[in-house]
Amino acid sequence: MTSKKISNAVIKRLPRYYRYLGELLESEVVRISSKELSVRMGVTASQIRQDLNNFGGFGQQGYGYNVDYLYNEIAKILGLENHYSVVVIGAGNLGQALANYTDFEKRGFVIKGLFDVNPRLVGISVRGIEVRDMDTVAAFVRENDVDIAILTVPKVKAPLIANELVESGVKGIWNFAPVDLAISDTHVVVENVHLSESLMTLSYRIKNEGL
Amino acid sequence: MTSKKISNAVIKRLPRYYRYLGELLESEVVRISSKELSVRMGVTASQIRQDLNNFGGFGQQGYGYNVDYLYNEIAKILGLENHYSVVVIGAGNLGQALANYTDFEKRGFVIKGLFDVNPRLVGISVRGIEVRDMDTVAAFVRENDVDIAILTVPKVKAPLIANELVESGVKGIWNFAPVDLAISDTHVVVENVHLSESLMTLSYRIKNEGL
Repeated sequence: MTSKKISNAVIKRLPRYYRYLGELLESEVVRISSKELSVRMGVTASQIRQDLNNFGGFGQQGYGYNVDYLYNEIAKILGLENHYSVVVIGAGNLGQALANYTDFEKRGFVIKGLFDVNPRLVGISVRGIEVRDMDTVAAFVRENDVDIAILTVPKVKAPLIANELVESGVKGIWNFAPVDLAISDTHVVVENVHLSESLMTLSYRIKNEGL
Repeated sequence: MTSKKISNAVIKRLPRYYRYLGELLESEVVRISSKELSVRMGVTASQIRQDLNNFGGFGQQGYGYNVDYLYNEIAKILGLENHYSVVVIGAGNLGQALANYTDFEKRGFVIKGLFDVNPRLVGISVRGIEVRDMDTVAAFVRENDVDIAILTVPKVKAPLIANELVESGVKGIWNFAPVDLAISDTHVVVENVHLSESLMTLSYRIKNEGL
């Protein structure tokens, strides 16, 4: 099994399966048919079967899916059995909001440091994590084997900072700056979160779907 | 032209065209071929032509696209020629980050109020906008003809609050709570932003694409 065969659309849907299975686990549901899961998730049962068949299936005819098993298998596929060291670049409201979001830590994304250029923010602490001077980020990333950088900086600064982080050894960038980062290093993956694009999609739908 | 024919994938791509055209305008580019635009955006020229043909084309053989015209046409398609009154529910870090994001206002999304249950937040002001008590939100939405509610509240509270907002007359909900809101009112559209799902996609790609 190589990642090349799996379409982006399937990969984007996996975290949603993971979330629903997590909710079923919380409700102490032991097993579920693709039909029941499809009703809950608002997708077709055949889509669920097709999606999961990309990774070998997991279901049994007449039994359905074992919730706990499937939850853990999807976690493995998503790489959530690993622990990731994370830094947040930009300690403004968004950076602090992300640093405060303890759900990330539960899933193995451990925030090791926050960084900002603003001297009024440097030295404060968010959930016990100190905000450090941006000048020290490259050394910090190297010394702490940081895997992921969360970028909450202005658009104009994002490309330079991203390059510095890549040179310092991060494996992934979760980018909130409204710009598509072009990283030439193919070892590094970038996931862009374009919040205003999601708001525009909402606007489109209000105009065209709202009655 | 009805919205029914346009696929979700195309709608999701429109804001990205809009962003790139905005950057071209800032760089004072007057016209661009689908080929040049495709190189910039990292998609095929045929995809661009196909996407834009859903809305009647806009390009001219041998000329390409007039950047200003196309930018404004896409704005109209996205409903960005309208102004929307917006409230932010939850005035924690994420709510404040979104309220501080002036780019939204430039695109016509005007934040009229922030709301929170926390008495320590009620009364403070964010970018000149007062944080009000959550108890007053329904009346505020009615009196101010609020179109859009941005939801930054805990998962368990989101469904009830969403229903209250729908009953008060909002047309759209931009939901940051990690739950898929089921709104029975078909006049109301919901756009879910599941931040942790995007982080899991990054994790998947680090595991499978990083070399």
